[in-house]
Amino acid sequence: MTAADSGSGTTAEEIVPVLLCGGTGTRLWPVSRRAYPKQFAALTGAESLFQASVRRLSGPGFAPPLVVTGSDYRFIATEQLNLTGVTGGTVLIEPAARSTAPAVLAASLWLARTDPDRLMLVAPSDHVIPDAAGFRAAVARGREAALAGRIVTFGIAPTSPETGYGWLELPGDARPADPGPLPLAGFVEKPGRARAEAMLAGGKSLWNTGIFLFTARSMIAAFHAHAAALIPPVEAAVAGIRPDLSFLRLDPAPWDAAPDISIDYAVMEKARNISVVPYAGHWSDLGDWDAVRREMGPDDKGLALSGQAVAIDCRNTMLRADSDGLALVGIGLKNILVVATSDAVLVADAARAQEVRQAIPALKARGLRQAEDFPRDYRPWGWSETLARSDRFQVNRILVRPGAALSLQSHARRAEHWIVVTGTARVTRDGDARLLSENQSLDIPPGTVHRLENPGAIPLMLVEVQTGASLSEDDIIRYGDVHVRSP
Amino acid sequence: MTAADSGSGTTAEEIVPVLLCGGTGTRLWPVSRRAYPKQFAALTGAESLFQASVRRLSGPGFAPPLVVTGSDYRFIATEQLNLTGVTGGTVLIEPAARSTAPAVLAASLWLARTDPDRLMLVAPSDHVIPDAAGFRAAVARGREAALAGRIVTFGIAPTSPETGYGWLELPGDARPADPGPLPLAGFVEKPGRARAEAMLAGGKSLWNTGIFLFTARSMIAAFHAHAAALIPPVEAAVAGIRPDLSFLRLDPAPWDAAPDISIDYAVMEKARNISVVPYAGHWSDLGDWDAVRREMGPDDKGLALSGQAVAIDCRNTMLRADSDGLALVGIGLKNILVVATSDAVLVADAARAQEVRQAIPALKARGLRQAEDFPRDYRPWGWSETLARSDRFQVNRILVRPGAALSLQSHARRAEHWIVVTGTARVTRDGDARLLSENQSLDIPPGTVHRLENPGAIPLMLVEVQTGASLSEDDIIRYGDVHVRSP
Repeated sequence: MTAADSGSGTTAEEIVPVLLCGGTGTRLWPVSRRAYPKQFAALTGAESLFQASVRRLSGPGFAPPLVVTGSDYRFIATEQLNLTGVTGGTVLIEPAARSTAPAVLAASLWLARTDPDRLMLVAPSDHVIPDAAGFRAAVARGREAALAGRIVTFGIAPTSPETGYGWLELPGDARPADPGPLPLAGFVEKPGRARAEAMLAGGKSLWNTGIFLFTARSMIAAFHAHAAALIPPVEAAVAGIRPDLSFLRLDPAPWDAAPDISIDYAVMEKARNISVVPYAGHWSDLGDWDAVRREMGPDDKGLALSGQAVAIDCRNTMLRADSDGLALVGIGLKNILVVATSDAVLVADAARAQEVRQAIPALKARGLRQAEDFPRDYRPWGWSETLARSDRFQVNRILVRPGAALSLQSHARRAEHWIVVTGTARVTRDGDARLLSENQSLDIPPGTVHRLENPGAIPLMLVEVQTGASLSEDDIIRYGDVHVRSP
Repeated sequence: MTAADSGSGTTAEEIVPVLLCGGTGTRLWPVSRRAYPKQFAALTGAESLFQASVRRLSGPGFAPPLVVTGSDYRFIATEQLNLTGVTGGTVLIEPAARSTAPAVLAASLWLARTDPDRLMLVAPSDHVIPDAAGFRAAVARGREAALAGRIVTFGIAPTSPETGYGWLELPGDARPADPGPLPLAGFVEKPGRARAEAMLAGGKSLWNTGIFLFTARSMIAAFHAHAAALIPPVEAAVAGIRPDLSFLRLDPAPWDAAPDISIDYAVMEKARNISVVPYAGHWSDLGDWDAVRREMGPDDKGLALSGQAVAIDCRNTMLRADSDGLALVGIGLKNILVVATSDAVLVADAARAQEVRQAIPALKARGLRQAEDFPRDYRPWGWSETLARSDRFQVNRILVRPGAALSLQSHARRAEHWIVVTGTARVTRDGDARLLSENQSLDIPPGTVHRLENPGAIPLMLVEVQTGASLSEDDIIRYGDVHVRSP
């Protein structure tokens, strides 16, 4: 996958999935953190929500995806895209976090450069939609309307008076059980409680999924009509796109000037050319841990367990042991949500699930890295994960992809000791190269200019032990910054 | 401290503290486990309950302690005894776990060999008694009665109708607020709820602390009178004591035949020569996590926090992050007990604190090592702590005391890689010795006969990385088993 591949091997009839994955999902701390947000986490199964979204929107009728994400997530997104087996995707980098409107406009402008009539399906990458085939059938039902210039949105029959969602009101003669597309009478973004209850009772309103099907041309026209202020900065950011490794990076300076506004507020509330396709299958946005508990398939006591978790006489409770080496026991709990990871534990009353986001400022105020950082750090060459740290040493597990290399570097004060667990390492120390195979080890004394590469065909896994009086991450001098990514 | 020191440097007037520390404290899992029970854990302060007990019963008037513990705990007890600075103590090893009666009789018989009139103070090592001087003053008040042949027990004014304690009933004319010793009207072991409530209301009963002052001679006589079946096996076990390193190990074969019975049931309920010294200071047996919460000094909302713990709108809740690298967040909790360690997390309703012991069989049934094992393993030469493990590698932190050595050994299938963090290591590989200092490392390939020693004057800390397809702990051949302990 390279930037040059954008649009290659696709036909104009295929829909381009545009996956939005810039969010940070703070209500799902500690599994979701700024450094590794919820869309990339395996919350309800073996694969992440992002991977499931990529695969759901692939196959016949779909072009390779355009993934819109933050700079911090570009390597995670690439890694997970590779894992899906869906090839030819493109990662478009937002230089700074913005809400959804600038991202949708940027994707539309980028795709319009090759084909303004290209169909695009914009979708968040953190939703649960188990019936992929059923959802693709709903998308197919919206196709003709979108080609005819409509913005097609997908609606869910509501089961509760949610005040955090956008709602789609249907006209009096529409039947929500119809396959659609249906006309839209009104768009209500985040209604008050009374309004939400009235819409729920009325039976003529649907939840808005935030998934939209349209042509690049119609969306750009909608911005011109309803949110023209976004056009100049986003146009300039797209015009200034430059490839970075295999990514497309929007031009940071104009992007910074783009208003931070959602597509719902900017366009959907105002546009008159909106159609609705009802989707009757199961859908969840996993908005908080209690929603995750429900998605985990709780038993008849409302109990949802994962990992090495033991519940003794608990009800309506989630016990997640989200780390291999961790055992979790709950005793006599009612309506409690527990998430235990290798470096952070959350215990919350289920009714307070929305307040989990308050943990982040509280942890930041204490200077705790768990507020935003994650033990595993994704890099162009693979990843590094902290296994243990103390005053005098730190132990990391490092994975280097086949063909990849870390930058040439040295450390003034710390020594590094590398032990190869699997694969083959090529280590250069002060110009002298050596191959290491499984079970072999090597030292990098302070001051040594060194480089680590994986010359082999399988991933290189090594354990790194750092020792010394100073283990600051700032103790690094890089000689050039040429990363070699995996092919 | 060596076995030969027993009784040396003491005078006949000094009281020998006999500290019972064979219990496993399953209600305080996961901090207390079979491999590292609660008396050795720092539950309410920087030092362990055992260390606090040793120091409380030391100084003028006290001989060095006799510590009675299980074989598994001998190295932990020695290490912690050293940390207290109280010298000359002896560790008496119970070859198998028994309740308190055999331990008290064995200690009495052992001390009677040198002086049958020796005063002994038998005390559990897992109680909290913050006012050490006040408690020593209470002990002093019982001294004359004990020398005169009484068994003196220490009583606490009750604050709740505890059904799990022994109760001391005072005669009608006794005033519980007197300094004592007072006569005993009756001993009630684990009363029913109604009886406990009646005793609480009556104001003439005290909780039994399980702390007893007596001469060896009186206790042996009490066993002859009330529990004669214990005499033959325990006498034989004491007669067969053999020194093992610096420990005294009771003879296993006769010990196995000793009945598993508490001192309360065997003797205290029946003996007529019991006196009571009321102790008015604060006392707790830390029977469960809610008792620990109360001892931690909760704030006016009943909130007790330790480690990197953050409470958002919680009440009557304990949040313990008992591991350096762990952050813990509680949100909207009421009456919840949370204990998070590096490899296990407990979340329990406070009213169910007594049921925490049920976690152990539940975890065992799943084959989880956290049921009983602890990440840190105490050995004669120091300790080893597992920092991380996976299929293909394991990382341990190893501490070797000055002058100590591990046994000569080899592994058929795993390689070991040692990196010295602090101190100096002497490593022998296939007969070839080498010194390693800080930041240096060395490999032990499979099949290499090797030994690790600390020839230096400061503790040797190293990180060990094991690699290989098989990391079983059974993959070890020991050549002789001569450990060298720290001096």
